[in-house]
Amino acid sequence: MKLATQDNGSPDGTLIVVSADGTRFLSATAIASTMQMALDNWPSAEPALRTLAARLAEGEGESATGFQYAAPLPRAWQWLDGSAFRSHGELMETLFGTEPPPAGRPLMYQGLSNQFLSATADVPLPREEDGIDFEGEYGIITDAVPMGVTPTQAMEHIKLIVQINDWSLRALAPVEMKTGFGWVQAKPACSVAPFAVTPDVLGDAWCDGRVHLPLSVDWNGKRFGDALGGVMEFGFHELVAHAASTRSLCAGTIIGSGTVSNSNFREIGSSCIAERRGIEMLDEGSARTSYMHFGDTVRMEARLSDGSLLFGAINQKVIKA
Amino acid sequence: MKLATQDNGSPDGTLIVVSADGTRFLSATAIASTMQMALDNWPSAEPALRTLAARLAEGEGESATGFQYAAPLPRAWQWLDGSAFRSHGELMETLFGTEPPPAGRPLMYQGLSNQFLSATADVPLPREEDGIDFEGEYGIITDAVPMGVTPTQAMEHIKLIVQINDWSLRALAPVEMKTGFGWVQAKPACSVAPFAVTPDVLGDAWCDGRVHLPLSVDWNGKRFGDALGGVMEFGFHELVAHAASTRSLCAGTIIGSGTVSNSNFREIGSSCIAERRGIEMLDEGSARTSYMHFGDTVRMEARLSDGSLLFGAINQKVIKA
Repeated sequence: MKLATQDNGSPDGTLIVVSADGTRFLSATAIASTMQMALDNWPSAEPALRTLAARLAEGEGESATGFQYAAPLPRAWQWLDGSAFRSHGELMETLFGTEPPPAGRPLMYQGLSNQFLSATADVPLPREEDGIDFEGEYGIITDAVPMGVTPTQAMEHIKLIVQINDWSLRALAPVEMKTGFGWVQAKPACSVAPFAVTPDVLGDAWCDGRVHLPLSVDWNGKRFGDALGGVMEFGFHELVAHAASTRSLCAGTIIGSGTVSNSNFREIGSSCIAERRGIEMLDEGSARTSYMHFGDTVRMEARLSDGSLLFGAINQKVIKA
Repeated sequence: MKLATQDNGSPDGTLIVVSADGTRFLSATAIASTMQMALDNWPSAEPALRTLAARLAEGEGESATGFQYAAPLPRAWQWLDGSAFRSHGELMETLFGTEPPPAGRPLMYQGLSNQFLSATADVPLPREEDGIDFEGEYGIITDAVPMGVTPTQAMEHIKLIVQINDWSLRALAPVEMKTGFGWVQAKPACSVAPFAVTPDVLGDAWCDGRVHLPLSVDWNGKRFGDALGGVMEFGFHELVAHAASTRSLCAGTIIGSGTVSNSNFREIGSSCIAERRGIEMLDEGSARTSYMHFGDTVRMEARLSDGSLLFGAINQKVIKA
């Protein structure tokens, strides 16, 4: 089942169910006005929403051509981003001269959750000198998770899977990391692809709490990376359990994978510019690729083996705020 | 004007205006159902709420005896906590062996905002071994703040002042700091004193974006500290501007001062246990005061020069989750 949020001008938009091919939709407001309300009441909302999905599968629904999608959750009560791809971490350590993290513990920070940009919204940022970078990620959305769940229990709380662009300001990131307090200025609002999908939509590509699909990233129309999502050091269920160690998680908590990255990054490419700069430092002794300029575009998408766009596409332009 | 939220069982409660002495209240739901809605519409809500405050000043209102207060914002879209008291930072560096931060930049992390405990709620935490500690703080709540405001402009966006207990798990804090990602497990939900007050209530005690009042902290009924709030290295207006450097802030953003701390901590005491442990390390070579045990209580309050309780009191017990 594919869910999405219609941008109707209100802060939370309205909930729709989308056909598997993304071409048609049915309003779900009779079941839950918003994505958050569906997650708040998932046990009753899910079967009713699946009835709409079945009607879409039989050809019902309005055309989604020209549809105005918001992010699936245009705002959320909690956004926790992991960094579960070790090769990404190693390249960041090369680039920024930071220490490797302690072994055996997921990395995670709490980020800005009061606004998620839509997949096609322009991205207003104040200064090119801040080092504007994209970060292609997968993410999951939970229902309410009790404090202290095990990873196995946590798996049952993963209700939806999403695709995220975690915008990052690289000139500010190491300054904030050095304090130990994590990122505030270095992490403005993320963008999210239009469709939030239930795990069954992925078939075999959802396995062991990981999304086993390449994330294709184009920068200014040129392929930049096709890294695979399956090699997370910790699965999403382990990230959920980590997050819930000392807090319960509210329904609608979004947890990110961190930048999708593979150890054969020289062949497969990267999901952020900082990684390429790290590779250049390793191979050429210094970073030469610049971060983004105002007017630059980035596109991110994941496709199932049948070629269909799983989450829709992120396709954005950076502009001066 | 003193505002508060009645716990009516719903996630956001309902808005009330409280008399200056905290003994009477009037429902404000005809103006704004919730504190968040008042902040979303502050230019129209404020004068209407002040009309209720004027009626309370003339003796109207219901008795607040036995009233069930929620936190002023029982959940918020954004909670950013500073660490603006340099003597607190120095003691934490002593205790945890961390580096001093870069000069000239406020410290700030993004924390759990989907739940703020009421001032009298029991605080459920999983393990004493995590090093359970309180942190007495002042905080402010903003209306919507545009990206890139100056500190002077930011001052106008400070609409309410609050008193916060930022619960901390000290065994986890340095582990998470070392990653540079900030705190997730080390920072469970905060508690907030019942009354959110407009700056004018403080009179001369609100000056230069700082709360010039002692924060009295009692641990298990014994006075632990009376540190003054006025010596923040950066005022709240500067913290707001720091937070808004690369993001706009939504209405209802809460920003904390960090643990209230003074350099004469040996005389005036502390607002958290970790500080006392830092002082013991300085004076005796090792920390001997334990963190909290299940069943321990903490009380925090601030009084105006006339002796009145400004924010009401935080008065809580830690229990096993």
